[in-house]
Amino acid sequence: MNDKGFTVVAYNRTTSKVDHFLANEAKGDIQELVSKLKRPRKIVLLVKAGSAVDDFIHQLEPFLEKGDIIIDGGNSHYPDSIRRTKELEAKGLLFVGSGVSGGEEGARYGPSLMPGGSPAAWPAIKEIFQKTAAQVNGEPCCDWVGETGSGHYVKMVHNGIEYGDMQLIAEAYDILKRGLGLAEDEIADIFLKWNKGVLDSFLIEITANILKFKDDDGEPVVTKILDKAGQKGTGKWTAIAALDAGTAVTLIGEAVFARCLSAIKDERVRASKAIAGPPKEPFRGDKQLFIDDLEQALYASKIISYTQGFMLMRETAKEVGWNLNYSGIASMWRGGCIIKSVFLGDITAAYQKKPDLESLLFDDFFNKAVHKAQPGWRRVIAQAVLWGIPTPAFSTALAFFDGYRSAIVPANLLQAQRDYFGAHTFRVLPGKENDKFKAGEDIR
Amino acid sequence: MNDKGFTVVAYNRTTSKVDHFLANEAKGDIQELVSKLKRPRKIVLLVKAGSAVDDFIHQLEPFLEKGDIIIDGGNSHYPDSIRRTKELEAKGLLFVGSGVSGGEEGARYGPSLMPGGSPAAWPAIKEIFQKTAAQVNGEPCCDWVGETGSGHYVKMVHNGIEYGDMQLIAEAYDILKRGLGLAEDEIADIFLKWNKGVLDSFLIEITANILKFKDDDGEPVVTKILDKAGQKGTGKWTAIAALDAGTAVTLIGEAVFARCLSAIKDERVRASKAIAGPPKEPFRGDKQLFIDDLEQALYASKIISYTQGFMLMRETAKEVGWNLNYSGIASMWRGGCIIKSVFLGDITAAYQKKPDLESLLFDDFFNKAVHKAQPGWRRVIAQAVLWGIPTPAFSTALAFFDGYRSAIVPANLLQAQRDYFGAHTFRVLPGKENDKFKAGEDIR
Repeated sequence: MNDKGFTVVAYNRTTSKVDHFLANEAKGDIQELVSKLKRPRKIVLLVKAGSAVDDFIHQLEPFLEKGDIIIDGGNSHYPDSIRRTKELEAKGLLFVGSGVSGGEEGARYGPSLMPGGSPAAWPAIKEIFQKTAAQVNGEPCCDWVGETGSGHYVKMVHNGIEYGDMQLIAEAYDILKRGLGLAEDEIADIFLKWNKGVLDSFLIEITANILKFKDDDGEPVVTKILDKAGQKGTGKWTAIAALDAGTAVTLIGEAVFARCLSAIKDERVRASKAIAGPPKEPFRGDKQLFIDDLEQALYASKIISYTQGFMLMRETAKEVGWNLNYSGIASMWRGGCIIKSVFLGDITAAYQKKPDLESLLFDDFFNKAVHKAQPGWRRVIAQAVLWGIPTPAFSTALAFFDGYRSAIVPANLLQAQRDYFGAHTFRVLPGKENDKFKAGEDIR
Repeated sequence: MNDKGFTVVAYNRTTSKVDHFLANEAKGDIQELVSKLKRPRKIVLLVKAGSAVDDFIHQLEPFLEKGDIIIDGGNSHYPDSIRRTKELEAKGLLFVGSGVSGGEEGARYGPSLMPGGSPAAWPAIKEIFQKTAAQVNGEPCCDWVGETGSGHYVKMVHNGIEYGDMQLIAEAYDILKRGLGLAEDEIADIFLKWNKGVLDSFLIEITANILKFKDDDGEPVVTKILDKAGQKGTGKWTAIAALDAGTAVTLIGEAVFARCLSAIKDERVRASKAIAGPPKEPFRGDKQLFIDDLEQALYASKIISYTQGFMLMRETAKEVGWNLNYSGIASMWRGGCIIKSVFLGDITAAYQKKPDLESLLFDDFFNKAVHKAQPGWRRVIAQAVLWGIPTPAFSTALAFFDGYRSAIVPANLLQAQRDYFGAHTFRVLPGKENDKFKAGEDIR
């Protein structure tokens, strides 16, 4: 913000941390900080999610006046942001919970900003936020998301999608390495090529760089890294939010569980000795065709993951009463953050064309893309299944796709079972009702 | 309990509900109920999970004496049972949270009972519980589960596993119907045959009965049932518990999400018109061999689901500090409940042989069973993927199996990505450390 010409006052509990940070320092106390600000005051908190946010809000409150704005730029869980918006609005103050993505690079060169909360705050912060954010084709990666906790909600879904994107890339790497038997350098070249096509994105680009990166002994560093993935919790939050909303966000769920499975390394090593897989068969097909199939499998799975993510946002918005700006959300993610990609421009376009789009799969562009991708997508999964290479994210994406486009799924049998043993009732298909089996209550 | 010769006093807020129910009725108030009981008093609450349980406990407390036992036989969420055990023990009372499964049939002919809570309560209720429970080969489907909320926890996992079993059967039905093009009568015969083999279980048996059941017009009733599956929440609780414990219980997760996807029927119908699947190819292989493969796919996936369920219980027990009785748990589920099966006898045997078994896949019997099943399991999924028939549960089971038996999974790439953009650190594989890349902190 300072770099973009806005006057910033910095404050930290530990004074030494802001020494020499900026010309304007509030070295004394919070009252001094507040007194230095123009009205309506705009105060950005960048503290650890949880009680630290509430503590700072309580410390600030006595010095604030009606219309002042508290902005939480941390990774807060959205129910907290819903509560804080309501509590502060009741006191005449305004609250913004803003997703901030981009890590250290984003902080220097412009992050993706996802502000939501009190709508009255937006006009006062719009210019600062949009100028500070990353820019793509002259447009800021920042727009108003919606009411109360929606900014943090959207950031949470963003992080969940990031888990999914990373897992898909990991599965592609695994197939190329263990399936086709390619070396890291060869795989890097494939990712470099993919980065010029439909998969063009930051994560594909850095994957190529990572695979090329050598230790002093000439070995790729990636092969020396322990295969236990860490988690900071936002992927898990997204999966839980999906379960609570009753929305089938299966790909993020599998991505989170894949990290859990990676974490039990010692048990996996013991299991690898105790449990035999299928006999190793060399690949007899055309390698390049298979690699092209894999590109399509990754692309189609990614389309499903974003389809699911946007379905989750739609469902939650409906439940909570948010008016979400879907094209704006996709647009915010186009730059400044980890999942930035050309692909997000296509999603932006889809929602600009039809703001109430039922799902991405109903959009012409994505419908055609998936249709084109599906033969290769199916071949890749069938091959991985026979090879014994795990593809939880590719597989669940395809299962979702095939379930979603099924007018009839076998849940009729589930309902019959539940009726059989549990005295749950079932409903009859429209047009199949008769005197014996009448239309029942909606079971949802 | 009354049928087994124990004297029962019944009480209900609404007196009419217990009129003529039993000889011993407490028509007046709770004090009258309590006064009629022998010490230590054993009071079973069968009320709706949530605040109703706390309300009854508070009403009972003034009339109880040290050592009296309150038993919650409802479907309480286990954190509530943990809290209630602690609260009541602090007052000198004993608490048991008991899973009760079996629906109406279980209530009449013996349920599966899963009691946990205050260990001191067990000797006082053991005879009543074990005689009241279903019996399999002369053994009661009831044993002491463990401390505090473990009884309700185990019941929750039981319900999650039930979701998984039902989903697996639904996928098999879908493959037989849409893939092989078989009619309900033919499919029923297949299930009847399976019920004589490794899949012998209540759910397979009732599935055959359901598929045979005709409407007056001769059509199978199952084909008239609306394909929207309902949920009562315990499957979701299990999936959330798995996410919280960081345990990859993927099959139950997919089963819950499959129900969510079934619920958006109208959207699926619209999608079925907008999105084309693969071209329909007739099946050219040997149908009977494929059906045998499918039996193995269902069996192997079921083994994975129970493997995951027991891993979840083990992980939670470690976190919470429960001493769980794993062979007892499997044994309790052998009869009286929806998931009752011959298979659970094999799990009982595995844990009897080795109470600290790392996972079912390390047991000889199951290791061999999965090994025998895997070629057919892989062929079935590969075929379903090419057909365009969704198999989320079969597929995730196989992905878990292949991940679990992988000494190296591609999470090294995830860690490299996280290090690249987020300044997370990674650890180096044992034996690969050098001056430049040192062994790091554990990231879990």
